Amino acid sequence: MIRSVAEHQQAVAGLLRYSSGYAKVSAETIPVSQAGSRVLAEDIFAPINLPPFDNSQMDGYAVHEKDLNRPTAATAPLRLRIAAPVPAGVEPAALEPGTAAPIMTGAMIPPGAAAVVPIERAEPAQFPPSDPAGGQRTVELPAAIEQGSYIRRTGSDIAAGTTALTAGTLLGTGQLGLLSALGIDTVSVRPRFRVLILSTGDEVQEPGTVLQPGRIYDANATLLDSGLREAGAVVVRHRVMGDNPDLLEAAFGEIDPAQVHLIITTGGISQGAYEVVKQALARSTVEFHSVAMQPGGPQAMGTVGGVPFLGFPGNPVSALVSFEMFLRPALSAIVGAPAPRVELTARLGCAVESTPAKHQVRRGIFRDGTVELVGGPGSHLIHALATSNALVHLPAGLEKADTGDPVTVWLIDAVEPARNALALQADPTHDEELHA
Amino acid sequence: MIRSVAEHQQAVAGLLRYSSGYAKVSAETIPVSQAGSRVLAEDIFAPINLPPFDNSQMDGYAVHEKDLNRPTAATAPLRLRIAAPVPAGVEPAALEPGTAAPIMTGAMIPPGAAAVVPIERAEPAQFPPSDPAGGQRTVELPAAIEQGSYIRRTGSDIAAGTTALTAGTLLGTGQLGLLSALGIDTVSVRPRFRVLILSTGDEVQEPGTVLQPGRIYDANATLLDSGLREAGAVVVRHRVMGDNPDLLEAAFGEIDPAQVHLIITTGGISQGAYEVVKQALARSTVEFHSVAMQPGGPQAMGTVGGVPFLGFPGNPVSALVSFEMFLRPALSAIVGAPAPRVELTARLGCAVESTPAKHQVRRGIFRDGTVELVGGPGSHLIHALATSNALVHLPAGLEKADTGDPVTVWLIDAVEPARNALALQADPTHDEELHA
Repeated sequence: MIRSVAEHQQAVAGLLRYSSGYAKVSAETIPVSQAGSRVLAEDIFAPINLPPFDNSQMDGYAVHEKDLNRPTAATAPLRLRIAAPVPAGVEPAALEPGTAAPIMTGAMIPPGAAAVVPIERAEPAQFPPSDPAGGQRTVELPAAIEQGSYIRRTGSDIAAGTTALTAGTLLGTGQLGLLSALGIDTVSVRPRFRVLILSTGDEVQEPGTVLQPGRIYDANATLLDSGLREAGAVVVRHRVMGDNPDLLEAAFGEIDPAQVHLIITTGGISQGAYEVVKQALARSTVEFHSVAMQPGGPQAMGTVGGVPFLGFPGNPVSALVSFEMFLRPALSAIVGAPAPRVELTARLGCAVESTPAKHQVRRGIFRDGTVELVGGPGSHLIHALATSNALVHLPAGLEKADTGDPVTVWLIDAVEPARNALALQADPTHDEELHA
Repeated sequence: MIRSVAEHQQAVAGLLRYSSGYAKVSAETIPVSQAGSRVLAEDIFAPINLPPFDNSQMDGYAVHEKDLNRPTAATAPLRLRIAAPVPAGVEPAALEPGTAAPIMTGAMIPPGAAAVVPIERAEPAQFPPSDPAGGQRTVELPAAIEQGSYIRRTGSDIAAGTTALTAGTLLGTGQLGLLSALGIDTVSVRPRFRVLILSTGDEVQEPGTVLQPGRIYDANATLLDSGLREAGAVVVRHRVMGDNPDLLEAAFGEIDPAQVHLIITTGGISQGAYEVVKQALARSTVEFHSVAMQPGGPQAMGTVGGVPFLGFPGNPVSALVSFEMFLRPALSAIVGAPAPRVELTARLGCAVESTPAKHQVRRGIFRDGTVELVGGPGSHLIHALATSNALVHLPAGLEKADTGDPVTVWLIDAVEPARNALALQADPTHDEELHA
C-alpha cells in the first residue's frame, strides 16, 4: 500500500511523540547567554514592567504639569528657569513649577513633570554648560506642549505579571534580548533531541580513505548530521555498516535506549536482493512503506529495542529529502525547534514535467521571486544539491507546469539567498586581498 | 551632514575590510564535520568523478550491448539466461552476451553491459532466490531496451578536476554533503571574525541583579552577542561601563588589538549632555554621524587603538537595527558569513505613515505574503521586537503606504515563520504531554 506524504508525516510525528524517551527527559535550566536556538520549557511572566519607569524619549526639558495647564489662549512661548539636569540612571528630585529640567533620553521623569520638550524645540537649542549653582539661566519653550508628550510610560511595552513568552517559543535574538531586558539570566528549556545515525551498504566508504573500485564515499551521515545539528539535535554517528544483516542486528542491539531518542539508518530498505536493514529487522515490528514521493519513496519506520526508528533510502538526495519532509517537521512540532522552513510561492523559471502519482521534490535556486531547477530528478545528484537553496514541490496530481507557473518552494540553504538589495555588492578582488 | 543608509553601509564595510586585523589572519584547516556555517578559504576541485563509475539507477537486470542491437523489427520479448548477481560495492566480472545479470541500485555496471532493465519490467518481476550454480534460470525482458537506459554515467554529476565549490562558499548541509561524497574530510576555512561588545550608561545594569530606581537591564549585549554568534563571529563581552569618560577611555586602552577585529559600543553617541562614548573618544579619529534612518540614526565609526570601532545607539531596537543594517551585511561581504537576510516583497497589512527624510525600519510579522506591523516605531519596544519575524523597510522618500502596498521585508527570525502548509499541525495537547 502506498502512503501519501501527509500520511507519512503524521506517522513519523506520532512515532516520535508517543514512542520516544524524549518526553520523559526533564527540562534544563541554562544561562540565557547559551539559550540561543533552544525552546522555552515554560511560560515566562514579566517580573518587571518595561519600561520599568516613566522615562524620557528624547534629550530635552522636563516641564511641570502646572506649567502645561496655562489658559488655552496663551500663545506666548513658555519661559522657565533651568533646574538641575536629570541624567539617566538616577532617581531625580521633584521638579518645581516654573522650572524645566534638562533630561536625557531614558532618564526617569521627575515627580511633578508631565511632558518633555525635545532640545531642538527649545531656545537655546543646546543644553547650558554644566552649572552646579543651577537655576540662574532660563530657557524658552513652545507655547503648546501636549500633556505626556515624549514620555515613555511604565509598562507600555510589557506590563509586569503578563506573559512575556510562552512555553514552546524558539529562542532567537529578539527573545533572548527580551529576557535580558526583563533581568532574567537563566531559563528553563526543553532538552535536545538525541539521534543516532548509521549508514549502511557494502559500497559505502568513510571519507578520507582511498576509494576502492565499485565504492562510493558516505555523504549521508554528513548530510543528516549537519541537518540535524542545524535543527538543534544532538547527533551520535555510528560507523558505516556493510550488507551483513547479522552484524547490523548486533549493532542495533548495542545501542543504549536511554541515550538515544531516535535511530536513523540510510540504505537497505528497498526491493533489491540485498536490503540489509530490511533483513536485519525482519523479525522486528518495523514496517517498510512506499511513500508517494520522489525521491525518497522507500521509507521504514517502527521501533528497534524500544527506540523509534526511521529507515531512509540510501541515495544522498533521497536521504536529505526524507529528513526535510518527514523528520525536520516532526522535530519542529515535537521539540519546538527548528523553525519550519520558510515556505514561499515562486514562479517556475522553466517548464517541468512531473509524475502525477507522486509528490516530486526537486532542487532549485530561488531568487527574485523565481525558482530555477538545478540538476534533474536523479537522487544521486549531490553536486546539484550543493548549488541549490530551495526545495521545489511538485505535488501529486501535477503532470506538468509551465514557465511562470506558481510553485511552492521551501528555502533550505544559504548558497544563493534571495538577493538582498540593500546588502553590499560582492567585491571581486576580495579573496585576493584577504588571502593573498 | 546626514549620511544615507547606503553610504553608511559602504563606510562600515570599508572600515572592516581595510582597517581590521582580520585580513591578516590565516585560514584554518578543520574537519568537515565541524565546518558547518564556515566559509571556504580556497576553491575545492573534485578529486574524483561523481558518480565514480557507471552504476545502476535501479534494481534490475544488466543487459549486454550485443543483445540490445537486435534488428529493429524484433518485437518478441528478449529471453536471457540469468547471470550471477551484481551487488553494490564490488567490481563485477564481465557480462556474457545472452545473459542478464541481476544488478542492484548503485552497483557497478559490468563490462559489456549497455543498459539496465528495472526489475518491475522483467518477467518474473522478482529476482530469483540466490542460486550459487547460476545461469540455469531465464528471464524475459521487453523487446525494446534503449541503449544506456537506467545507467548513471561516471562524472555526470561532477567531473574529476572541475571546480566543486569556490572560495567564499558558505558551507551548509548540501555543501558539506558534497565534500563527503568527494571523499574530503578536512577543509581550509576562513577565520572567524572576533568582536568585543561593550554596553555603556549609568542607567544600565546586568541582568540577574536587583534593579535599582531609574535603571534598566542591559539587553544590548545579549542582542548583539546572539546576532553576532548566529552570524558566525566570536564574541567577547566587556562588562557594562558607566558614564565616566576617563574609565571608558582606560577600558579601551586595555583591549588587545591582536585579539579583536572590531569593537562595538552601545549608547553614549547622541546629542545629549552625557554622551560617554563621544567624550571618551573626543581625542580619537572616531567620527559621529547622523544616518538618515529611524531607529538607529546616531552612528559612530573609526578606529580605537588601531581596531575598527562602531558605536551604536543605546536603545535596544536601535542597536539591533544598526547591527542588521550595517554590520551584518558587512560581515556577509567580507567574511562570507552569514548569508544575507532573505529579502522579500510583502503586502502591508495596514496603512502606515513614514518620515520621508529617513529610511524607517519597522518590525513586523510576515506570513502568507503579508506583513503586519508589530508595535510602534519606538526604539525601546523590545517586547514587540521579540514577537516579530521581519524588518519592514520604509525607504527614504516614502510619506505613507496603504494596506496592500508592496514593501520590502527581511526575514530576521523564526518566531512566526511563513506558514508551512506541509508541516504538521500544532497539537494543542503537546506541552502537557511532554512536560506534565
